[in-house]
Formats: sequence, C-alpha cells, structure tokens
Amino acid sequence: MDNRNRAAAPAQKEPNEHPDTLVWGKNAVTELLKSGTGVDTLLLADSLEPRAAGYYTALGKQSGAVIKRVPSGKLQKLCGTADHQGVAAWAARIQYATLDDLLAAAREKGEPPFLVLCDGIEDPHNLGAILRSALLCGAHGVVIPRRGGVGVTGTVMKASAGAAARIPVARVANLSQAIRQLKEQNIFVYCADLGGTPLERTDLSGAVALVLGSEGAGPGALVRKLCDGAVTLDMAGGETGVDSYNVSVAAGILLYNIMQRRKG
Amino acid sequence: MDNRNRAAAPAQKEPNEHPDTLVWGKNAVTELLKSGTGVDTLLLADSLEPRAAGYYTALGKQSGAVIKRVPSGKLQKLCGTADHQGVAAWAARIQYATLDDLLAAAREKGEPPFLVLCDGIEDPHNLGAILRSALLCGAHGVVIPRRGGVGVTGTVMKASAGAAARIPVARVANLSQAIRQLKEQNIFVYCADLGGTPLERTDLSGAVALVLGSEGAGPGALVRKLCDGAVTLDMAGGETGVDSYNVSVAAGILLYNIMQRRKG
Repeated sequence: MDNRNRAAAPAQKEPNEHPDTLVWGKNAVTELLKSGTGVDTLLLADSLEPRAAGYYTALGKQSGAVIKRVPSGKLQKLCGTADHQGVAAWAARIQYATLDDLLAAAREKGEPPFLVLCDGIEDPHNLGAILRSALLCGAHGVVIPRRGGVGVTGTVMKASAGAAARIPVARVANLSQAIRQLKEQNIFVYCADLGGTPLERTDLSGAVALVLGSEGAGPGALVRKLCDGAVTLDMAGGETGVDSYNVSVAAGILLYNIMQRRKG
Repeated sequence: MDNRNRAAAPAQKEPNEHPDTLVWGKNAVTELLKSGTGVDTLLLADSLEPRAAGYYTALGKQSGAVIKRVPSGKLQKLCGTADHQGVAAWAARIQYATLDDLLAAAREKGEPPFLVLCDGIEDPHNLGAILRSALLCGAHGVVIPRRGGVGVTGTVMKASAGAAARIPVARVANLSQAIRQLKEQNIFVYCADLGGTPLERTDLSGAVALVLGSEGAGPGALVRKLCDGAVTLDMAGGETGVDSYNVSVAAGILLYNIMQRRKG
C-alpha cells in the first residue's frame, strides 16, 4: 500500500479532541470525501496550489466537513511524514445525518418529531451524556452545530456508552436556520433557560424540539429569540448560591419528562 | 515560619485527584488533625517510629482521615523536602459532616430527611454534578464512603459549581452501617437500580434516602440487599443497546422527582 494513502493514528492530537483517524495524500482524502462515510475536519496546507485548494474546498463543503487552512509544517507534524501532498482529513467517528434524516426517522415511526438541539456544548462528557439520555428517552435525533461546540469525538462516544453510534446526529452549519426549518414544520421549539415557563406548566406532548445552551452562557441570544418558548426547571427554595443544573442533568430531567408526557 | 510547618502545593499529585494542600512535619500535621477543619488523607512514612505511628493513627481515625503508610522516599518526593519527619496530610477541601449533622439539618428545617448516598462514584464530574443537583433539589446532605470512590476534590468542587461547599457531605467508614442507621430512624432507603419498581409507582414523598451505585457496576450487592427497595427509571421502547442513564443524570431525574413530590 502506498504510504500516501495510508490512514494512521496521528502523531499528535488536534485540540477539541478530534477523532483519531487521520488520512492524508490527495487520493486517500478524495476517496474519503467522496465515500459518504463522513469527514470531521479537512486540513489544507497553506502551500497547496489554488486550483487544488478550490477543488478540495468544494468537496469538503459538500461532505459537511469543517475546513481549516494550516501551515505545511503543522500538517507534516500531524501526519508524521512530508508525503501529505498538502491535504489531510480527520475521518468522522460517526456518519452524521441531516436534519431531514431526523424528521424522516420520526415519520417512519409514526410519531410526532422529538429532537434535541445543542447550542455549543463544549464538554465531551456532557454531549455524551446528552446523546445517551436522548436515545433512552426516545428522541429521534440530536442536532449539533458545525462550529462552536464539540463534535462526536472518541471521548463523546465513550461518555455516551455507545449511544452516539445509535442515535442520528445532524451537524448543521447554522443552528438558527435549523430552528426556523423546524418551526416551519410545526414543531414547537423550546429552549431550556432560566426565567421561562416552569417545566410543570409547559405542554411538551406534541412535536417538540428542545434547545440546550452551552455550559457557561446558556443558549445564545438569537437562538433564544427564535424559540417558541423557554422552559425552566424547578429548584428547592432557599439561597443556595447555585442557579442552574449541570447541562446534561438538565437535559436528562427535561427529556425524561417529555418521554413521560408523550407516553401518557 | 519553620519549614517543617509549612503548607505548600505538592510537587506531584496523588492519584484520585487529591485536594491540593499538603501539610507536613509533626507539629503542623498534629495541629491540622486537631483543628477540626478536616484532613482528607494522612500519610505516615514506613520509617516512622511505632509510638508516633500509633499516635497519628489514633488522631487520624478520630478526624475521619484516610490513613496510608508510604515509603519515606515517596513522602520526600511529595513534600519536596526531607524535613517531613515521617508525617504529612492532605487537607480536606471541605469540612466533612457526620451522618448526624445531616439528620440535624433536616430537623432544623422541620422537614422529613432527604439524603443522597453515593456507593463508590469514581468520576469527579459525576460526583460534582450529583452534589449540585442534591443542593438544588433541596436534599439535606450527601453521604460518600471513606474508601472506594472519589472524595470532594478540587475537580469535584469545580464540577459542582460551588455546591460542594454549600451542601453538607458526610464521609463514612461504612456505607452499609450508614444505611442501617438511617433505616433505624424510619428513613426509607431506595437504591437506583435496574429491575426495581418504576419511579412513577414509587412513593418518595416521606423521609427518604436515595442510594446511587458506581458508574460501572451499580450499587454493591450488600448495599442493594440492605435497601428497602430499588427504584428504576423508565426508558423508551425499542432495542437501543444502552441500558442505563449516566449516573449523575439518573440522580438528577430522581432527585428532581423527589423534590416535586415533597412539594406536593
């Protein structure tokens, strides 16, 4: 096998816990991009000739990959060889679905859609636990943004106890756009946030999408504005000095509740 | 200040994420053990003369510390000096409470006791999230075992968003013994486990203690046998290949439910 077409464990991990299969060389990367098995991130060396860069950028966009320009030296370090021909790609750990795939999954089951949208979850343990809860509570899929937030990495897979491979995950370029699309389909989009309607007084029985904000900041202002409403968890009285649950715990409480109401 | 009485950041961290204040030297350790502010782990060098070892072992037991015999060389490495006189101690990040303190907290509030027992939670992120949920759901305290499971370390503090400093945590030598004590006080002790009574059909409104098992194995056999019952979370139908929620998510769902039922 040609060295340029070989997939191997990388010499060094990218930040943000990339999946652990790096492919390099023009033929290998082209094949991977066209295979439909999914590419997490496409790396193009600064030194790559413009025509080739244009070709791979187009292919990368089509496959939904995040595209990064990197110094040639960095690519060499990552690949552990100078034979990378200016292109490399981190293969995705899972094959991402589309928003339409998720809605189709609901239709096939003859159920009103039940989706989870993650607006910038950073911690792979949290995303893993959310995927696990979503699967166990009968959601039809999870939507994550292409940028701003962790993808489905090896750590996420592990934290999900395997759920990440079993529930469809759509990675979208624009979460606001996804929310608009869902609303057009008459899906009620709630975000989990402080100062909303108490969970106990929210009707979550129909077609519903639940938006979860990032660990630090909660849902973004635009996202929250786009949502049909906000749902808030109860807390015991008294001054506790802590004003929110861990995001994966909050997700679990909400998803469990939605499952119960859909059943009954 | 005498070098032997100085507290400093350790040269190297102990496994299991110890708190980050190490104290060494006979006077300093004696003071710390007698101060009541709490000692996580007492380290006694193998070279310590038997009479001193006996003295510190007794003091350590009294203060609830975990006691470890270590090679003198290891102590020197940890302290970054040979002046440790054969004794060192990791100060606790929080002041641990007793089981009686937790029950007293419930009495003071005029509420039926509501406690959480962790049977060997290993992951500091999980323990942190559990402490956070316990505080927000109005539990009177959390019980953790002295051995087998993570203590309240810096990582736990951080993951709890500060809740670890605000909810009493009792560290007990024997969790089974604690369960027996709670049952004698007419507190209903449930463990969260597969194959129990569905949450929706469990009466959780009175004096209650919830036992959470470790990430991998769930509650231990003896602990489960001692409990008055097991409570099981619902899951959506279908073959998902995943049979349980993340332990901190399961804890959140259960504690939230208990809070709701106690409220009426």
